[in-house]
Amino acid sequence: MLKEFPDDFDYYLALHEAVAVAMADAYSQATGNVVHVNLHTAAGSGNAMGNIQTAWFNRTPMIITAGQQTREMLLLEPLLANKNPYLQASPWVKWSYEPARAEDVPAAFLRAYAAAVQAPAGPVYLSLPMDDMDKQCPLPPAHRKVDPRLSASLDQMQPVVDALDKAKHPALVIGAALDQLPDGWNAGIKLAEKLACPVWAPPFEARPGFPETHALYQGVLPAAIKPLSEKFSGNDLILVIGAPVFKYYPHVPGDYLPKGVSLIQITDSAEEASRAPVGDSYIADPARACKVIEQAIAARKPVAPQAVSTAEAPKQPDDMITADYLFYVINELKPKDFVITQESFSNMAKLKKRIPIGKPRSYFAGASGVLGYGLPAAIGVALAERESERKRKVICLLGDGATQYVVQSFWNAAQERLNILFVLLRNREYAILKSNSKQLKAKNLPSMDLPGIDTVKIAQGYGCEGGYVRDPRQLKEVLTKALSHEGPYILQVEIDPEVPKLL
Amino acid sequence: MLKEFPDDFDYYLALHEAVAVAMADAYSQATGNVVHVNLHTAAGSGNAMGNIQTAWFNRTPMIITAGQQTREMLLLEPLLANKNPYLQASPWVKWSYEPARAEDVPAAFLRAYAAAVQAPAGPVYLSLPMDDMDKQCPLPPAHRKVDPRLSASLDQMQPVVDALDKAKHPALVIGAALDQLPDGWNAGIKLAEKLACPVWAPPFEARPGFPETHALYQGVLPAAIKPLSEKFSGNDLILVIGAPVFKYYPHVPGDYLPKGVSLIQITDSAEEASRAPVGDSYIADPARACKVIEQAIAARKPVAPQAVSTAEAPKQPDDMITADYLFYVINELKPKDFVITQESFSNMAKLKKRIPIGKPRSYFAGASGVLGYGLPAAIGVALAERESERKRKVICLLGDGATQYVVQSFWNAAQERLNILFVLLRNREYAILKSNSKQLKAKNLPSMDLPGIDTVKIAQGYGCEGGYVRDPRQLKEVLTKALSHEGPYILQVEIDPEVPKLL
Amino acid sequence: MLKEFPDDFDYYLALHEAVAVAMADAYSQATGNVVHVNLHTAAGSGNAMGNIQTAWFNRTPMIITAGQQTREMLLLEPLLANKNPYLQASPWVKWSYEPARAEDVPAAFLRAYAAAVQAPAGPVYLSLPMDDMDKQCPLPPAHRKVDPRLSASLDQMQPVVDALDKAKHPALVIGAALDQLPDGWNAGIKLAEKLACPVWAPPFEARPGFPETHALYQGVLPAAIKPLSEKFSGNDLILVIGAPVFKYYPHVPGDYLPKGVSLIQITDSAEEASRAPVGDSYIADPARACKVIEQAIAARKPVAPQAVSTAEAPKQPDDMITADYLFYVINELKPKDFVITQESFSNMAKLKKRIPIGKPRSYFAGASGVLGYGLPAAIGVALAERESERKRKVICLLGDGATQYVVQSFWNAAQERLNILFVLLRNREYAILKSNSKQLKAKNLPSMDLPGIDTVKIAQGYGCEGGYVRDPRQLKEVLTKALSHEGPYILQVEIDPEVPKLL
Amino acid sequence: MLKEFPDDFDYYLALHEAVAVAMADAYSQATGNVVHVNLHTAAGSGNAMGNIQTAWFNRTPMIITAGQQTREMLLLEPLLANKNPYLQASPWVKWSYEPARAEDVPAAFLRAYAAAVQAPAGPVYLSLPMDDMDKQCPLPPAHRKVDPRLSASLDQMQPVVDALDKAKHPALVIGAALDQLPDGWNAGIKLAEKLACPVWAPPFEARPGFPETHALYQGVLPAAIKPLSEKFSGNDLILVIGAPVFKYYPHVPGDYLPKGVSLIQITDSAEEASRAPVGDSYIADPARACKVIEQAIAARKPVAPQAVSTAEAPKQPDDMITADYLFYVINELKPKDFVITQESFSNMAKLKKRIPIGKPRSYFAGASGVLGYGLPAAIGVALAERESERKRKVICLLGDGATQYVVQSFWNAAQERLNILFVLLRNREYAILKSNSKQLKAKNLPSMDLPGIDTVKIAQGYGCEGGYVRDPRQLKEVLTKALSHEGPYILQVEIDPEVPKLL
Repeated sequence: MLKEFPDDFDYYLALHEAVAVAMADAYSQATGNVVHVNLHTAAGSGNAMGNIQTAWFNRTPMIITAGQQTREMLLLEPLLANKNPYLQASPWVKWSYEPARAEDVPAAFLRAYAAAVQAPAGPVYLSLPMDDMDKQCPLPPAHRKVDPRLSASLDQMQPVVDALDKAKHPALVIGAALDQLPDGWNAGIKLAEKLACPVWAPPFEARPGFPETHALYQGVLPAAIKPLSEKFSGNDLILVIGAPVFKYYPHVPGDYLPKGVSLIQITDSAEEASRAPVGDSYIADPARACKVIEQAIAARKPVAPQAVSTAEAPKQPDDMITADYLFYVINELKPKDFVITQESFSNMAKLKKRIPIGKPRSYFAGASGVLGYGLPAAIGVALAERESERKRKVICLLGDGATQYVVQSFWNAAQERLNILFVLLRNREYAILKSNSKQLKAKNLPSMDLPGIDTVKIAQGYGCEGGYVRDPRQLKEVLTKALSHEGPYILQVEIDPEVPKLL
Repeated sequence: MLKEFPDDFDYYLALHEAVAVAMADAYSQATGNVVHVNLHTAAGSGNAMGNIQTAWFNRTPMIITAGQQTREMLLLEPLLANKNPYLQASPWVKWSYEPARAEDVPAAFLRAYAAAVQAPAGPVYLSLPMDDMDKQCPLPPAHRKVDPRLSASLDQMQPVVDALDKAKHPALVIGAALDQLPDGWNAGIKLAEKLACPVWAPPFEARPGFPETHALYQGVLPAAIKPLSEKFSGNDLILVIGAPVFKYYPHVPGDYLPKGVSLIQITDSAEEASRAPVGDSYIADPARACKVIEQAIAARKPVAPQAVSTAEAPKQPDDMITADYLFYVINELKPKDFVITQESFSNMAKLKKRIPIGKPRSYFAGASGVLGYGLPAAIGVALAERESERKRKVICLLGDGATQYVVQSFWNAAQERLNILFVLLRNREYAILKSNSKQLKAKNLPSMDLPGIDTVKIAQGYGCEGGYVRDPRQLKEVLTKALSHEGPYILQVEIDPEVPKLL
Repeated sequence: MLKEFPDDFDYYLALHEAVAVAMADAYSQATGNVVHVNLHTAAGSGNAMGNIQTAWFNRTPMIITAGQQTREMLLLEPLLANKNPYLQASPWVKWSYEPARAEDVPAAFLRAYAAAVQAPAGPVYLSLPMDDMDKQCPLPPAHRKVDPRLSASLDQMQPVVDALDKAKHPALVIGAALDQLPDGWNAGIKLAEKLACPVWAPPFEARPGFPETHALYQGVLPAAIKPLSEKFSGNDLILVIGAPVFKYYPHVPGDYLPKGVSLIQITDSAEEASRAPVGDSYIADPARACKVIEQAIAARKPVAPQAVSTAEAPKQPDDMITADYLFYVINELKPKDFVITQESFSNMAKLKKRIPIGKPRSYFAGASGVLGYGLPAAIGVALAERESERKRKVICLLGDGATQYVVQSFWNAAQERLNILFVLLRNREYAILKSNSKQLKAKNLPSMDLPGIDTVKIAQGYGCEGGYVRDPRQLKEVLTKALSHEGPYILQVEIDPEVPKLL
Repeated sequence: MLKEFPDDFDYYLALHEAVAVAMADAYSQATGNVVHVNLHTAAGSGNAMGNIQTAWFNRTPMIITAGQQTREMLLLEPLLANKNPYLQASPWVKWSYEPARAEDVPAAFLRAYAAAVQAPAGPVYLSLPMDDMDKQCPLPPAHRKVDPRLSASLDQMQPVVDALDKAKHPALVIGAALDQLPDGWNAGIKLAEKLACPVWAPPFEARPGFPETHALYQGVLPAAIKPLSEKFSGNDLILVIGAPVFKYYPHVPGDYLPKGVSLIQITDSAEEASRAPVGDSYIADPARACKVIEQAIAARKPVAPQAVSTAEAPKQPDDMITADYLFYVINELKPKDFVITQESFSNMAKLKKRIPIGKPRSYFAGASGVLGYGLPAAIGVALAERESERKRKVICLLGDGATQYVVQSFWNAAQERLNILFVLLRNREYAILKSNSKQLKAKNLPSMDLPGIDTVKIAQGYGCEGGYVRDPRQLKEVLTKALSHEGPYILQVEIDPEVPKLL
């Protein structure tokens, strides 16, 4: 496929398929465009499966092609044959196909493109026998357009409007969709402001759909049935826009909602709608739905927004840097225009508190919980920033367990000289697993620690520069320097290994 | 599951699972409601697979439950265990599931319901271990509503409106969806009349979406690439509503469309949109889209509708009854209010010409091409008619190959004393296969004939009454009597075995 | 595929795919040869799925081909396209394939053949695009032989030999495999006689592997954990040959074996071996294993065989014919050489008692529990008998629920004028379901009766002759006449609807 | 599952699931025992898929458990739920299962064990809901034994014996199976010596099944149809033992065998047998088959073994170290007892020539072609050596592309202080891709080079020591020191980037 490679196509090589897929995913998330990843038959597809899963949950429009052995030998299943390309990437792709004839490859691409972009977007998988690339295609298939978005009309939304108009204490839950849809971010703000009601982020979204700096913003909902429900004790109607209901993580039994509270979900995913355990669901484009509802609901008395408790500035720790203090300092020192990518599950709550995101397309994580996304995602986002006019600084916040999954990514950062600050929260442990064990009251667990790794040295092996900091008194100075570094820089911060609570 | 069966539930037993599924499918098609079919584990699911496939193509909201062996023995795979309930009905169901716990059965039903009704509707499959039925369910899951329909808004439809306004010679292709959606039939008529343009039916739709008696109606498009394309030589824009683009059958190569003609598809199926080889696709509710477009397009000069060539009355044949003459006579003698179900592939073209359908919900067939639907469908429709106030006569037109697939259905007709006239077109052959062979120029084919079957006698064995006719001169008299028969009646008509052309 | 059909190939058309598959299955079972069934794409495959499942459990070497739409349109999924031929017949085939090129069709056939015949044999599925049939194949693939059977060597069997030599009270359980393998029947007898130990048949085998008339034969094991285990209270070692451990049906909890009893299984199915809940398993050819073990074990003192309680002749009932009496009379009147096929689950125990099978290849049923096998199986067996020199009479014993599943089969019996007596046990109910409900103590079940069906009339509609009997005093006379009828004859016997116990 | 972890169980944590699976795989290969790998639900399973594929091709008996979200929330598909555990690892596991009840977990393990070890061995996948671990299991399932090996008997092998006795110029092809089966290595030698015929290794086997130092040994067959066939021009019968026929890689069309040459395959894999394009296949245990055949064949005139051309010692290069020279020097300096693991596809041919393996269980690679096996395999083998009494030095030969796939493995080497010498063949390119492109005559390919990576530094970041060598004159000295290093050592050798020929 790479023969006579066209000049107007950018091709980035990665040292591991997981890196390639996550870079591509983040590039697509950051630009809003479809992305194409080419893998090395069943072998590379296998290595990529973790991040293909993340692309599924991230709803990334991604065309994955995988080379297949030559059609002439397929019946023999020779070395590197993709034994069953229809199952290879299941169940994490929207469509999986190997064309029945070489002549169908171009039209299969068109169909793959259409399937990938349609709401809800996601990865598709094409297995392409290598000898197909040498065949003549009689006629290219006709260009066609498939509108990727659903609509939202007033007649469909009328029950939602009525319910909101009747509600005394509505609340909004706004998901990642409103940052993915080009016109979603502002539509969400306008709706929230007309409703003058509290706004929550759903648990484990890959990116915020609503400004975390907004006066109506309440924070991220806890990821368990009972505590989540309790957050809504003062409400009578919850409107969830562009998110599942809900992505729980630990099992804390309880009612899904307080008695007397009703819930409405607006999603463009039929599967999400059928899976929700409570509430009424409408399948519509979330951003368009916001606009239609906002125009149709009655004006409300402007309520003074519930004062969001701004976190107090933390004291500089005496002994060890805490994650909380680190994020606080980053927030103080960061440039005006910045993008965050992150993968430090155990510290996410503190991060959300200390580095609130106020602008669209400024924060990217993986929605699947599969480790190995945040680091290569920084590369993908940085490529997107370099191409755009914004040229924002990318700050990538990483746990040290997560980093190890895709450490090969540093090579791409170095090769492309991308403007990224990687901050490693070195706590020498799988803190999220420890939090989880605490929650489960499990004891005597083997192998939760991660001693003896020097990631700065590893990154240097890939051509990046980097440094260390351990003393809280030096943090600001070191960080200031690191932020002003041109090109990729890895700062390994020794942090207090205290295990945070899961909920 | 049948223990202590509730009284407010109607349960119909069938002699074969294929009959049960098709009866249920047609009942759902005729009433617009979800239907529940219970099968006998993997065994019954196997026997039902043909008509489950038809339910998939018919877009019937159908919850299929299949008993599973007791959970306690499943690991042993005892007799009648459903070895892999996730694959058993694949790829012809929208969701396939066996709950992870007995306690989840009620909520799994709710999820199954939601998945079944969502556009595009279709069958779902639940495997239920039999001992689960004896467990207590802690709390029934909350009632919830999932809006099954997509919307259609003006902003989404604007490009369609613009294209129509610009088009000089548009044409409409209206699919079954407009008869399935409660408000679709009239919306289609209004749009067509405002456009004052020719209207076609797409090939192999299960039911008409537009009155075949309407002055703008042109007929059914031929089911092959080249002849279909040629029908549009005088147009500049084709708008396809609620149908695939297109369900071709024989392969007759050619351009998908004449040069310079563009095509727009409006469908509620993302898969249908991505699969179309030409044209732009919009994913929206077809009925709602019609209304939005109709209101937004500019008025057109009322064009005198192209005179549709009304078929001349045929002469009474001298020797043998032809299908054409039979349909003509049925049309003459049929009651004012009637419903057709049919399964005679080779005679479909003549049927469409001679018995045009002018009212909604009045004609039902299978969209899949799987034999064994039309006969039990008559039962399902007759049950629906009996429950409604309409109490229309059901006329079921059958080829003799198709009839043999589900001959057991006559038992249900007899047991329920349903008001159905079954008309058997006895040509003693698989005429559709012969048509196909002619098209393919294949010769010396074995086993295309069906000698030695007396279906009237068979139906009598199931408790129905029936009779025969062979002489064209007796047809009217015999048919008049058969139509006035109360309860099920089978009329076997010996017809001319001339093989019709496939296209 | 049927174009220019070769003369040295027998092609039988059936009115329903389920009939075709079961006819072919039984033909293969009766002859020991591979069989080829051609289905009509996904549509026909769907209709056939029930009996494909039976072929899986029967271990029938069967090549199923299914036509596929022309390769040139597959990407469009036209009418009758097999959407996913790899899943269509899952999980009930050993291999599922659509060749990547037309040129591979012949070699794919060879591979399909090899996969079908290998132990354990079973169905395979090939999807063949119809235009492939018109392509030239450059060179036919080389002929090759795949030995379908495993071996059994003394070194592998030594632990079995040692265990048998040490055992004081061994018992044998001999499965259908010993009748399927050409040299199995006598090998089983020789082993049993050298061990001089009781021999059981495992539950729900499709055919006996050991003469039911033999002095060592004890009967069929009950199909539930506790009662089966209790049968072995006097033994110390159970040797199961060529059968699963075990095919339980209702769940009656208990120990799998009495304390202190050990079990050894010899099977050619790795899956069967891994699934067994108790005992040690060896994967070997069952017939060859019998021979190796028989030669290696020490001679035993000939024990006088436990007198098998011969059932007393039943009295002629006064009022209604019972199944027991019917089978008794059939056994009295049947010709010396005969073959039984059967599908009357509720009466199986009585049948086994009254019509014991003393010769190999003389009894055929379905191993899956899927209804719809016994009737067409009679056709398949009768075709095999007609081709052989034996020309035995086929007696087909049918429940009336089972008959209705494949009533279309009578047409093939009539068309081929096959020498079959069909005996219908007309009890007007699903007796097996009633037995099951009794076992489960379930009450108020809907729809367990089957009133108003006259199967003789139906069979006449397909060209067969038939008659009725209800009076016990006339049974012998009527049956004598029916048995002497040349060609197919259907005898409907009204029997006492008393519901037998499940265990 | 890790709660209250038992002391008599060794648990090794890896930084990436691909590392864990490959370490476990190699440990199992080296010890011949089953191995258990625990993964983190769908997420970890995704990351592991590449090496699970390798375990499939390596035929490694591996039980993979993957945690699943709590059963109580599964219907909701919460974060980290394994959406479809039956498909997740398809098609690369022998059995995939999630128990229907918590109580079935122990018995499911037994079944998984049995399925994994049976010939052909391979990985199995169990999804275990986390709350199942807290449930009481009523009674542990009974211990049982499943004999993992097939047998081979004289009656089955007689046609092979006859063919060999008749053959004038037989040749043997001996696969990895004879090193995997404990008694295979010597059985192969005895057979070869009695036949006094040439012995070949099949292409792409994971380990040699016959001593590469033996006088009868001819080398590795080329991995393409035509050149492989040509190697047999002087033979009349090829006997392939324990290997597929054949694992071709590039497509070089030709006859599978020279005219007049016949082929017999003995394999314990039914799939391998059905897939072979030529020859007759017997399904039997390869080692047992060797013994049976060796005893049964007639003695042959001892033929002077064809002199194998011993490679001449290469000259020390002037400028850059070549792979050939490197391997030569390693062979000179290596300790008497050693084990090789390797992953340098482009240099495999030279390696085989320069470092022939003369003893069993002394060389391990991956059979799948998936990158990322060789490096962690060294860890698994070193763990096995440490536990055994042999304590052999492990020498791991790596290409620099392959190394990058699982660079995290160095951490385990360091943590366990394993006695491994890693030799990195640093050529700064994907040489195998370049070879392949040459073969395909493809030009202008993007991204085939790997500049700017210092793997020694990376390994140091994980706690290993290491060094560099570039000057041919220093190679011996540096290598001597590296080989004597206690604990893990990484030697990066700059080699001549000349692209070797693919065939």
